[in-house]
Amino acid sequence: MEKLIITAAICGAEVTKEQNPAVPYTVSEIVREAKSAYDAGAAIVHLHVRKDDGTPTQSRERFRECIDAIKREIPDVILIPSTGGAVGMSAEERLQPTELFPEMATLDCGTCNFGDEIFDNTMPMMRIFGKRMLENHIKPEYECFEMGHLDTILNMAKKGEVPGAPMQFNFVLGVPGCTPATVGNLDWMVRQIPAGSTWTVTGIGRAAFPMAAAGIIMGGNVRVGFEDNLYLSRGVLAKSNGELVDKVVRLARELGREIADPAEARRILGLA
Amino acid sequence: MEKLIITAAICGAEVTKEQNPAVPYTVSEIVREAKSAYDAGAAIVHLHVRKDDGTPTQSRERFRECIDAIKREIPDVILIPSTGGAVGMSAEERLQPTELFPEMATLDCGTCNFGDEIFDNTMPMMRIFGKRMLENHIKPEYECFEMGHLDTILNMAKKGEVPGAPMQFNFVLGVPGCTPATVGNLDWMVRQIPAGSTWTVTGIGRAAFPMAAAGIIMGGNVRVGFEDNLYLSRGVLAKSNGELVDKVVRLARELGREIADPAEARRILGLA
Amino acid sequence: MEKLIITAAICGAEVTKEQNPAVPYTVSEIVREAKSAYDAGAAIVHLHVRKDDGTPTQSRERFRECIDAIKREIPDVILIPSTGGAVGMSAEERLQPTELFPEMATLDCGTCNFGDEIFDNTMPMMRIFGKRMLENHIKPEYECFEMGHLDTILNMAKKGEVPGAPMQFNFVLGVPGCTPATVGNLDWMVRQIPAGSTWTVTGIGRAAFPMAAAGIIMGGNVRVGFEDNLYLSRGVLAKSNGELVDKVVRLARELGREIADPAEARRILGLA
Amino acid sequence: MEKLIITAAICGAEVTKEQNPAVPYTVSEIVREAKSAYDAGAAIVHLHVRKDDGTPTQSRERFRECIDAIKREIPDVILIPSTGGAVGMSAEERLQPTELFPEMATLDCGTCNFGDEIFDNTMPMMRIFGKRMLENHIKPEYECFEMGHLDTILNMAKKGEVPGAPMQFNFVLGVPGCTPATVGNLDWMVRQIPAGSTWTVTGIGRAAFPMAAAGIIMGGNVRVGFEDNLYLSRGVLAKSNGELVDKVVRLARELGREIADPAEARRILGLA
Repeated sequence: MEKLIITAAICGAEVTKEQNPAVPYTVSEIVREAKSAYDAGAAIVHLHVRKDDGTPTQSRERFRECIDAIKREIPDVILIPSTGGAVGMSAEERLQPTELFPEMATLDCGTCNFGDEIFDNTMPMMRIFGKRMLENHIKPEYECFEMGHLDTILNMAKKGEVPGAPMQFNFVLGVPGCTPATVGNLDWMVRQIPAGSTWTVTGIGRAAFPMAAAGIIMGGNVRVGFEDNLYLSRGVLAKSNGELVDKVVRLARELGREIADPAEARRILGLA
Repeated sequence: MEKLIITAAICGAEVTKEQNPAVPYTVSEIVREAKSAYDAGAAIVHLHVRKDDGTPTQSRERFRECIDAIKREIPDVILIPSTGGAVGMSAEERLQPTELFPEMATLDCGTCNFGDEIFDNTMPMMRIFGKRMLENHIKPEYECFEMGHLDTILNMAKKGEVPGAPMQFNFVLGVPGCTPATVGNLDWMVRQIPAGSTWTVTGIGRAAFPMAAAGIIMGGNVRVGFEDNLYLSRGVLAKSNGELVDKVVRLARELGREIADPAEARRILGLA
Repeated sequence: MEKLIITAAICGAEVTKEQNPAVPYTVSEIVREAKSAYDAGAAIVHLHVRKDDGTPTQSRERFRECIDAIKREIPDVILIPSTGGAVGMSAEERLQPTELFPEMATLDCGTCNFGDEIFDNTMPMMRIFGKRMLENHIKPEYECFEMGHLDTILNMAKKGEVPGAPMQFNFVLGVPGCTPATVGNLDWMVRQIPAGSTWTVTGIGRAAFPMAAAGIIMGGNVRVGFEDNLYLSRGVLAKSNGELVDKVVRLARELGREIADPAEARRILGLA
Repeated sequence: MEKLIITAAICGAEVTKEQNPAVPYTVSEIVREAKSAYDAGAAIVHLHVRKDDGTPTQSRERFRECIDAIKREIPDVILIPSTGGAVGMSAEERLQPTELFPEMATLDCGTCNFGDEIFDNTMPMMRIFGKRMLENHIKPEYECFEMGHLDTILNMAKKGEVPGAPMQFNFVLGVPGCTPATVGNLDWMVRQIPAGSTWTVTGIGRAAFPMAAAGIIMGGNVRVGFEDNLYLSRGVLAKSNGELVDKVVRLARELGREIADPAEARRILGLA
């Protein structure tokens, strides 16, 4: 089994300091959280950005600022800016970080309920996002919340509308309205990806560590972070993203999987 | 195994006479198609209605007219009006047929891409639909295009927001953007419904008869009709919904399952 | 989807004329049944042989006699002699038909209960069978009654102990004591075969036609015949293997799959 | 989720001091290992016994001696003597510990290859074992290595040939020749047990801790011990069964599941 790639989703667009005071808003807070995750073992930081007051934004300039600041501190980390943004943003707004030519960026593969709201990713939008990533040589991380999302993106890849093999999938399980975070559901989706693909699992809320364990033993990779879950264990807020990553590292050690550093992660993901 | 309940989705909101001249628009055409399906063995007619020019509508009066006309011809058939309507309609518009106190009505269980468009069924909408069906004593047919749709409705049923056990599910597989129509995907979803539930499978397009066969051998029920598929076999347009139903009846006979009449279907569905 | 390969298991080792008078024992009866299956659409005949009184035997001479007689009548049919024989036979006894250098032969991939008896296929036996097939250039049909059987043979193929890719599997489902014949179980096993493999499903007893339908819609191939099932429908004995094959052909036609002739089957199986 | 029941399989019939010097043979060694497991958090000890030289035996007297000695040290532990014994033993030989009227005993549910040998559990044998357990009011732990084993025992339970609901299953995955130890295979089997059942997973060899993690997150229970695995991590022999149990406890803690003591385990298993 390959080494385990840990992604830290350090910020997200929805969680707030009211929920956990360690949620980062400012550039320096974002750097602090990125570094704590990296130091604990994360090879990848999945990045949303905020205004200083916490408002989610997809501003290219804010992304540039954050990316530059992170790279100064931890130059080799892999950064995956979000193109998901926050519910209600336009496609153009969401696409801004791709103008910075990052190695990777997320690409959401379908429309679904997200709690009481709609997370909209229509096929025409997806084609625009795919075209941009093809043009800018960005490797997408394909986020799938449902089986239909996976099928959609596989069809688009066949048609050349989005970047193809080797594909990297992130199965986000446990969002209210979408496929629940069970081992069986995860296994079901993983069985349907093309040979030679890589995958990551993200369990939302209390599913974060059970899904992390599933990813570890199934040969996948793991994402954790404040975007997905604020707690280290029941009732105990995590003090940093590093604490969440550290727990994944402990699980991996117990289960006999070593941790990939960024160079190893690049090789595994076919980035190098 | 229980007898097989066949549902005919005779009309839908999207297909046109240009695609197949037998698609019904007028009241008398709708009666003709309902009767052909019933005569061939359908116990249930799933009903969308149109204006005379084919425009989809959820008009209460048009539904009343069609339902009355069908009931005059085939009084015992089970009618399931759609609350899905056509893409872009408002919740209130879609809910109109529930004012006629039908035995059953469809309730779509989540938002998803539907080709290049969004089929929106937000949780707040679903709660309104559920409340109406509870008040009007309508048994919902829960339409699930994704695993997350199933999970959503099970959670709402637990909270009493929508009618509960015994629940009837319709797994609609093969819509572009949603879970593809494979035997494995169907089995995967069926395994996650509560004991004591009933279910139907609807395969879209060329998946219509393969999914019908799967439903027959797995102990589920089957929906076919112009809404889902216009062809009897590759390149051969069906001349009527009855022809499509008849093919399901032949498959069921070959596979040793008898056909439920409306009275038997009511007992199996817990309507009686 | 490829054309459908139908295998007729015309005789078996256990069924008797008392159960169905059309069960063949003598050479001419075996030819009659092979021809009826072939004429109905079977590209492959899976062959057990008997003494004239019906006693199962693996006698090389009896196999030679039957094979020669069948080939005179239907020269292009693919013959797959059994190396399973009857419960209780020794490995050497069972291996006899391989001395005739058939194109293919069955190879059972594990030990299991078979009703109240044990069908023994130990790993040392399997290695002997694999070696023989490698030496005699016989393509095995790998019979799997359990997931562990599949895993065993994949491991042996990796080690070169049995012939490797492209592998042909026969999932025999519904034997009392082994994996039951459900669509889900079949799908589960099919998902675990190597890319580029071919597979057939055999449903025992009343599962014969449901599993045939599953094989048809899942893109696999189908085996039927007196060895597995004696009835055309509930309570109606089949008058010939041809009647059983004919029913599969009807199902395939309804479900839009064409039937492979022996030449096409050889190409699909990689025999040519 | 219920608390986690940990079973320690402290001895087995096959492993030797040559492989790991901590493998217990003598009564006092067996007590030592049982106590180390119990102290670490095991509520159940699964018991095989040996002669002082390590030879496996099913001797009633040796079982009595060991059980008495263990009970003196840790009176509340749940003991599950094996009726599997060692390969090649007769049914009567294997049944001896049931004469001591233990609370529980294992009952193996089918025949399979076990490496190069056959582990034989024919249906007639299983009926004898079931009858004995019914008569002696022993709750079986049903050991399933294959899907067919599960199906067999469910059929026997329906016929009243073996004790029925609530049933306790032990899915033993990873034995060479049987279903491999993957998360998907485990999930597949768990989905097919009756509602109200309990289950445990046993991963053989290097699958021990991955399967333990799977059991923890899926809401099942976990068996570890020298019978199944001799290593704490790659290349590191466990010094005691307690060390293996302790590692499961650590995993459970990280994953938010509490550990059941014997009283809680009896309630969960329906023994009390």
